Amino acid sequence: MNKINRVAIVGGTHGNEFTGVYLLKLFEQNLNLVKRPSFETLTLLGNPEAFKESRRYIHKDLNRSFFSQDLQNSILTGYEAMRAKVIEKMLGPKGKSQVDVIVDLHSTTSNMGLSILLGELHPFTLQLAAYLTSINPEVKVCYTPLEQESNLLRSLCDFGFAIEVGPVAQAVLNAELFQKTEELVYAVLDYLERRNQGIIENINSPLTLYRFGGVIDFPRNEHGEIKAMIHPQLQFQDYQPLHPGDPIFLTFDGQAIAYTGTSTVYPIFINEAAYYEKGIAMCLTEKQQLKNS
Amino acid sequence: MNKINRVAIVGGTHGNEFTGVYLLKLFEQNLNLVKRPSFETLTLLGNPEAFKESRRYIHKDLNRSFFSQDLQNSILTGYEAMRAKVIEKMLGPKGKSQVDVIVDLHSTTSNMGLSILLGELHPFTLQLAAYLTSINPEVKVCYTPLEQESNLLRSLCDFGFAIEVGPVAQAVLNAELFQKTEELVYAVLDYLERRNQGIIENINSPLTLYRFGGVIDFPRNEHGEIKAMIHPQLQFQDYQPLHPGDPIFLTFDGQAIAYTGTSTVYPIFINEAAYYEKGIAMCLTEKQQLKNS
Repeated sequence: MNKINRVAIVGGTHGNEFTGVYLLKLFEQNLNLVKRPSFETLTLLGNPEAFKESRRYIHKDLNRSFFSQDLQNSILTGYEAMRAKVIEKMLGPKGKSQVDVIVDLHSTTSNMGLSILLGELHPFTLQLAAYLTSINPEVKVCYTPLEQESNLLRSLCDFGFAIEVGPVAQAVLNAELFQKTEELVYAVLDYLERRNQGIIENINSPLTLYRFGGVIDFPRNEHGEIKAMIHPQLQFQDYQPLHPGDPIFLTFDGQAIAYTGTSTVYPIFINEAAYYEKGIAMCLTEKQQLKNS
Repeated sequence: MNKINRVAIVGGTHGNEFTGVYLLKLFEQNLNLVKRPSFETLTLLGNPEAFKESRRYIHKDLNRSFFSQDLQNSILTGYEAMRAKVIEKMLGPKGKSQVDVIVDLHSTTSNMGLSILLGELHPFTLQLAAYLTSINPEVKVCYTPLEQESNLLRSLCDFGFAIEVGPVAQAVLNAELFQKTEELVYAVLDYLERRNQGIIENINSPLTLYRFGGVIDFPRNEHGEIKAMIHPQLQFQDYQPLHPGDPIFLTFDGQAIAYTGTSTVYPIFINEAAYYEKGIAMCLTEKQQLKNS
């Protein structure tokens, strides 16, 4: 990619993640905050109906509604299936998107701090991630290797990524995290501006990357009901090492359940509210250093 | 009240407050945990349909559905209106309830710790509250003077109270708070058992009471949209003194808004997710010492 011409900031892809929704409102009322000389900035409220009801979605998770075949399927008529088609018209089509970068603003009940979620390891996004970690060491970078086409909203564009902040309860604003997310958005825009102007230097220090390696579900009974909770020692310990034998769950009658893996991993999205229904108690990552040159 | 014959433990009055729901499941599978020799213990899942959808309610807040006139109104047919009538059949009727005590288990995104919410200051509930604070100094006791008939589920019975724990996000289990709530329920049952057996001593040390004195809404624009967040200095500071001039809100563009009251108050339910729609950013209380003899 040479010059960046259009950037989309999306919030409220999940209607109960208020940080992104209210940041969008702020930006839309103060366009100068996100305007930069060398490119156009669009803002988009992902799921307005779900936001009205303070819910993640109405019929289906909008952020799992962007498979090409679903976007082309005229039979799908749930609210999010239709909304995905509208959004594709505004930002897409996939592979030939009208925007160069999508920044999708999310929040989580997990202690994800300020996280950048990447779907592809392209030198452009890696340099951006390295820049963001260099100016704010709190920023963590996660990477999920794609085994198939992505169904995420940000996959409409080759250089889409998510900013994921937490812990914050659903349908709540946390002012501190709001302001940190706001600063991170400005840092992204400033980086893109300087890149367009050719005045950025490559950052050559290694980048710490948390590479997605699978998920662990809650223990469940034969009816699919959970039988245990995240262990208190693991709660809010996202990005911390989890060793074989460490407790991960606690049954309702107080029995600890250990992690039975054979190597140390770094769990993220520990106890994310929206993942109970997806069969995910946490995601496991490997921590790796990436030479960035 | 002489002898206590029946006690109802209710959880999931709000379907996305998981602590109570899963405590009920534990109790129902291990009845001995809540069985005591001198009285009968019932368990009741308040809003099963809302729990299935991980929502507070389907059509209307169940915990605002217990006005006598609503219970008698055959035209009201929303899910919670009907569910309230079913629950009244099981526990009520109001004023002549089939149970002597209702313990309603709630959770909140606010930092309420372990709170007991009382609707009436009766020597019986005051002694119970004093006992609970004596064995666990973490326990706080709140009191809302009733200006009219209560529409809360626990008002079905003269000696109903809520246990309110937090902070915990909606639709999430926090193991530490789960276990603390569990212990508190056992302490209540043990107290009632010993009272029936006549082996409790009155606790004469003064009881600290947080008396409800009103609510503050978020600043809103002409469309009813909130214009500010809870100030970071106030977030999670439930039960701490708030002085005139202290910051309480922060606008989205970063301006602090001060508390304009004329006396020191003790806010609770600060930034409770479910109260955004009710026009409540926090509740204000006065702290008072009650002689308990």
